[in-house]
Amino acid sequence: MNTYDPDTLLEFSANLIEAMGSPRENALIVARHLVEAQLAGHDSHGVIRLPQYHSHVREGKVKPGARVEIVRESPTTALLDGHYTWGQVTAMKAIELGIAKAEENGIAALSLRNCYHVGRVGVYPLAAAERGLIAQVHCNGHGVCRVAPWGGTEPRLATNPVAIAIPTRGEPLLVDITTSVVAEGKVRISRNANREIPDGWVLDSHGRPTTNPADLYEGGSLLPLGGREGHKGYGLSIIVDLLGGALSGAGCGTMTEKVGNGLFIQLTDPACFCEREEFLDHVERFTEYLKSSPLKEGVEEILLPGEPEQRAAALRREQGLEIDDGTWGQLLELAKGLGVEAPGDS
Amino acid sequence: MNTYDPDTLLEFSANLIEAMGSPRENALIVARHLVEAQLAGHDSHGVIRLPQYHSHVREGKVKPGARVEIVRESPTTALLDGHYTWGQVTAMKAIELGIAKAEENGIAALSLRNCYHVGRVGVYPLAAAERGLIAQVHCNGHGVCRVAPWGGTEPRLATNPVAIAIPTRGEPLLVDITTSVVAEGKVRISRNANREIPDGWVLDSHGRPTTNPADLYEGGSLLPLGGREGHKGYGLSIIVDLLGGALSGAGCGTMTEKVGNGLFIQLTDPACFCEREEFLDHVERFTEYLKSSPLKEGVEEILLPGEPEQRAAALRREQGLEIDDGTWGQLLELAKGLGVEAPGDS
Repeated sequence: MNTYDPDTLLEFSANLIEAMGSPRENALIVARHLVEAQLAGHDSHGVIRLPQYHSHVREGKVKPGARVEIVRESPTTALLDGHYTWGQVTAMKAIELGIAKAEENGIAALSLRNCYHVGRVGVYPLAAAERGLIAQVHCNGHGVCRVAPWGGTEPRLATNPVAIAIPTRGEPLLVDITTSVVAEGKVRISRNANREIPDGWVLDSHGRPTTNPADLYEGGSLLPLGGREGHKGYGLSIIVDLLGGALSGAGCGTMTEKVGNGLFIQLTDPACFCEREEFLDHVERFTEYLKSSPLKEGVEEILLPGEPEQRAAALRREQGLEIDDGTWGQLLELAKGLGVEAPGDS
Repeated sequence: MNTYDPDTLLEFSANLIEAMGSPRENALIVARHLVEAQLAGHDSHGVIRLPQYHSHVREGKVKPGARVEIVRESPTTALLDGHYTWGQVTAMKAIELGIAKAEENGIAALSLRNCYHVGRVGVYPLAAAERGLIAQVHCNGHGVCRVAPWGGTEPRLATNPVAIAIPTRGEPLLVDITTSVVAEGKVRISRNANREIPDGWVLDSHGRPTTNPADLYEGGSLLPLGGREGHKGYGLSIIVDLLGGALSGAGCGTMTEKVGNGLFIQLTDPACFCEREEFLDHVERFTEYLKSSPLKEGVEEILLPGEPEQRAAALRREQGLEIDDGTWGQLLELAKGLGVEAPGDS
C-alpha cells in the first residue's frame, strides 16, 4: 500500500486515458472524476477502474473519440446521445448545457442515452449545486441487473441510483443513494473477503433470505431499499428506470443488452420561487436545527447527507490517496502497454 | 357498519363543505378528493376527516372562502399562496396551472405555500399523468413532526412523502410513499387497537427500539425509510422538506408552528425527448416484463406501484364504501349542526 498525491494521480490518469484514444480535454474530465470519487472515499469508483475502462475500449464498448450529440433541444430541455464516449464526458456536457438553460430560463430537464458508465452519480448534481442550482439525477443501469421485482426472484432492475444536491452557503447537501438496499459492490467486497453479509441484503435464486454473498452471483438478487417495506424501494427503482431509460430511449433493465446508464437530469434555480439568500437562510437554519437534535446513546454527531464524503475528501486531499500494490501494479502495466510514463519514472 | 354509494357520499360531503363556508366549486374539489381517497382504500384520508376539517374551520386553521394567489410566475414556473383555503383546492389549482405550462413549454415546476392539509398526495401527480405528463410531487409537512434526524431522538421531520406518477396506456403508474418507514396513521391504528407494532418502526424517547406504539406519542420518534440503511430515508426526507418548505417559504419541520403542507411539483412532457407512443411502448413492455418475473414462494403475483389502489377502487366503486357507525354518527351530527340534509333524510 502506498500513498499518492492527488495531482500526480490526476496527471497520470489523464495521460493513460489520452493514450486510449481520448482528446486531452475529455481525458481530463474522466481523470478528474476518478480522482475526485476516490478523494470522497469511493475507491471502487476511482483509478481502480482504469484497467477495466481500457478493456472496454478494446472491446468497442467505449469509443473514446466519439462526440456527444444534441439530438433534440428547446430553451429548457435537451436530449443528448453520448455515442458511447466516456459516460463522464456525456454527463458533464449535459450538466453544463443544463446549467446554462436553468440560469437563463429558471428550470431545465435533460435526457441522456448511449451513455457509457457515468461513475459516481453524485458528481453531476454537485456540479450544478455549486452554481446555486437544485439538481436531481435519476440514473438507470441497463444491460446488467441485480434487483428482482418485489415478490419475484429474477433480477430485472439495476441498483438504479437517485442523486439530489441542494446548494448551501458551504458545500452542497448531497443525497446519492441506490434504490437497492446497498450498492452491488458492497456484496462483492464481502464475497471477495469471504465474509457474511447482513440479513436483508440478498435473496438466493429461490427467493429465500441468505447471508452468503456468493448467492447473489448464483442466480440470486439484491433486495430493494426498505427492508419489510421494500415495495417502496422497488417503486422508486421502476421510476428511475423509466425516467432514465424510457424517456431517453436508452432502454430499461435487462431489456437491452447494451451496458450503460440512462440519465434524467432536472435543474431548478431557487430564484424562480424566492430570493436566493432567503433560500440559503432556510437551508442553513434547518440543517443546523437537524444537527442540534438530542443524540441517541452511542451516537457522537448528527450528519447531513454528503458530510461523510466531504470529510473524507478534506482528509485525503491532505494525506494523499492510498492505492494497494495490486492496483498500482495493474496501472503500471497499463502505462507500459500504452507507452505512458509512470509517476517517478523520470 | 353500513355501505354507501360513492355518488351519494360525494354529494353529502360537498354539501357539508359548502355549509362550512366554501364556494360550491371548491366544496366539490375537496369532496371528490375525500371520496376518491376512500375508493382507493385510504379510509384515513376519506370522509372520516370531515369533523376534523370542521373544527379547523372554526379554529381559523382553514379559511374556506380564501382564494389561491399566484405570487410569481414565468412561462414554466409559478409560486402559489393558498392563503389557507382547502389544501386540495390549492394543490389542484397548481396542478392545472402546471399542466397548462407543461403542455405549452414541455416542463413546469410549481411551489406552494400557506397550504392546508392536501390529503392523499398521489392524487395530484395522477391528475397530470392522466393527461400524459410525468409528475413528481415532494410534499413536506410542517408544524407537526414524528421523524428524528438519523442518530437523533427528537422528531424534527414530518413523514414527508414523495409521489411520482408516470403515464401508461391504462391507468398511470403511481409511487406514493412516505420517506418514513410507514405513515404515522399505521402506528396510531395499532395503538388504538392495543396491538404491538413490528420492530423497526419506532424508537422510544431515549432512541431505543420499541414495539409499543404508545411510545411514539410519549416523546418517541418514527424511523426513516430504509431499516439499517435508514440514513437513505433520512436524506430523502431532508430533500422533501427543503423542496417543499424552503423554496416556497412555507417553512421546514417544526421550525414553524403553522400546520400544513409545502409542495414542490414538477411536470414533464415525455414528448420533449421522444415520440409519445414510443415512450408508452417502453413503459408497457418494461412493466409487462417486470410482472412476468418468476415468483417467490407464497407470492401470487407481481404488482406495479399503484395497482393495489386501482383494484380497491374498482371493487369499491361496485360494492360501495363502508363507513363504521361511529364515523357515520359524527357525520350526521355535523350535518345537523350545519343544517345540511343527510342521505335518506328526505
